[in-house]
This record gives sequence, C-alpha cells and structure tokens, in this order.
Amino acid sequence: MEKQEAVNQGLELVNSSTIAMLGTNGEDGFPHIKAMLKMVNQGLKKIWFSTNTSSKRVEQIKKNPKVCVYFVDPNEFKGLMLVGNIKILQDKSSRQRLWREGFERYYPLGVDDPDYSVLCFTGLWGNFYHSLSNIDFEI
Amino acid sequence: MEKQEAVNQGLELVNSSTIAMLGTNGEDGFPHIKAMLKMVNQGLKKIWFSTNTSSKRVEQIKKNPKVCVYFVDPNEFKGLMLVGNIKILQDKSSRQRLWREGFERYYPLGVDDPDYSVLCFTGLWGNFYHSLSNIDFEI
Repeated sequence: MEKQEAVNQGLELVNSSTIAMLGTNGEDGFPHIKAMLKMVNQGLKKIWFSTNTSSKRVEQIKKNPKVCVYFVDPNEFKGLMLVGNIKILQDKSSRQRLWREGFERYYPLGVDDPDYSVLCFTGLWGNFYHSLSNIDFEI
Repeated sequence: MEKQEAVNQGLELVNSSTIAMLGTNGEDGFPHIKAMLKMVNQGLKKIWFSTNTSSKRVEQIKKNPKVCVYFVDPNEFKGLMLVGNIKILQDKSSRQRLWREGFERYYPLGVDDPDYSVLCFTGLWGNFYHSLSNIDFEI
C-alpha cells in the first residue's frame, strides 16, 4: 500500500465513523482508552470532540497532552491510528461550533456550561492497516 | 450503578465482543491503540490474545507491560476499560490453546512459528460506563 492510498482510505474511515477511541496517559503510567463521539474533522490533521470539563480525560490531558485517536472497522479489518497532541478549548466560538441538539443532557447549563469543553486534536503521524498491509505516514 | 452490576454488565460486553482495543505505551510518551481479536477470557481477570512476535505491539510490551484493554458497544453507549499488565507467552501449551483454523495466514510456519506469540493480560481494575453512569472497580 502506498502512503497516499493509506491516507485516502484512512480519511474514508474517519468520515464514515461516528466514534473514535481516544488514548491518553492515565495515572501510574497506564494508558487509558475512551470512546468519544467524533464531531468535526479537517482531514487527518485536526479532529474536534466535546467533553465534560470535570471528566477524568480532561484531567489527564491537562497533565499530558500526548494522545492517540483510533478508528476501526472490525468487519473489514481496517484501522487508523493518529498520534499527536490535544488541546482543551473553552472559547465561545469553539463551543458554539461543536454544540448539537440534545447536548443539554450532558451540559445542563447549555453552550456556556462551565462543564462543557471542546478538545482539539492535532495529528503528527498516523498508521493505517487493512488486512495484512500496514503503513506509517506523516500528517 | 452498583459495582457488582458494573462487573456483570462488563462481562456481558466482553463475552459478546469479538474484538478489543489494546492500549500500550508507544515511543516518545504517546499512547498507542490497536484492535485485537479477543480470543479467550477468564472473567475480567485474564484475557488472551494472539499476535506476531515481530509486531510493534510486542516490542512496546517488552519495554513496558502496563496496558489497558477496552471494549465498546457504540450503539448502547456502553464501554469497559480494564487496566493491568500483559505478558508475552511462547510456551507450547499457550500457543496450542489459542491456535485457530486459518491462522497460517498470519503465522505461515504453523503453531511453532517463532513469529507466533500469545499475550496474556491480567486486570488490576476496571471502569464500566453505560450512558451517564460510570463506575470504577477492582478486579
């Protein structure tokens, strides 16, 4: 598999996925994983998520912004791992951009709820595999 | 949600899952994630996987056995994270126990292929969530 094909197929997987797995550095040196709703993406370079400011994830990211984001299609044996850094955003425009109908369930005070944060992931490199083909690429 | 209910529901999720996400400590301090076929489990305490000895995963585990294993049901907003340590096994009995029809595709030399390894995860603690309920428990 060529790099460009891996990027194209990886992007297809991102665009068809509703969730992504976020890998963070947890306490005591153990990695942690949590499924997140994939909200908005700009190619493979930037991915935005929404989250509770009070969540364990945000606490971990404040201490260490090194993360990975993983997408998988288990039926096709396809997977994409993106490795990079993540930022916690609380500005009005990011909050409004990510806000969706029904989010009051998670953030009862609405778009200005202090417990509502946006995460912005920036990819450095990725790995895409399909069956036995496997390729690393820079983003 | 009570602890026992979380463990029971977590176990149901493990038993109904064919894949698990394995979180490892990658290079340069970034966490890595890879989907693995869930092969055999003993409650939530032990989970066995098969893998290529030459894989990046095995290299990472040799340096650092601290991992997590994650199961998700995205339709039901359910997820289980198990945190613990993982060992690389190459003894005959573990290899035979995990061997399945068709594995020649991954390990062409068969059950004794030096590139065939078994991973045994031992859980220390877990977190189960369903919708907005979320609970940590010891294993």
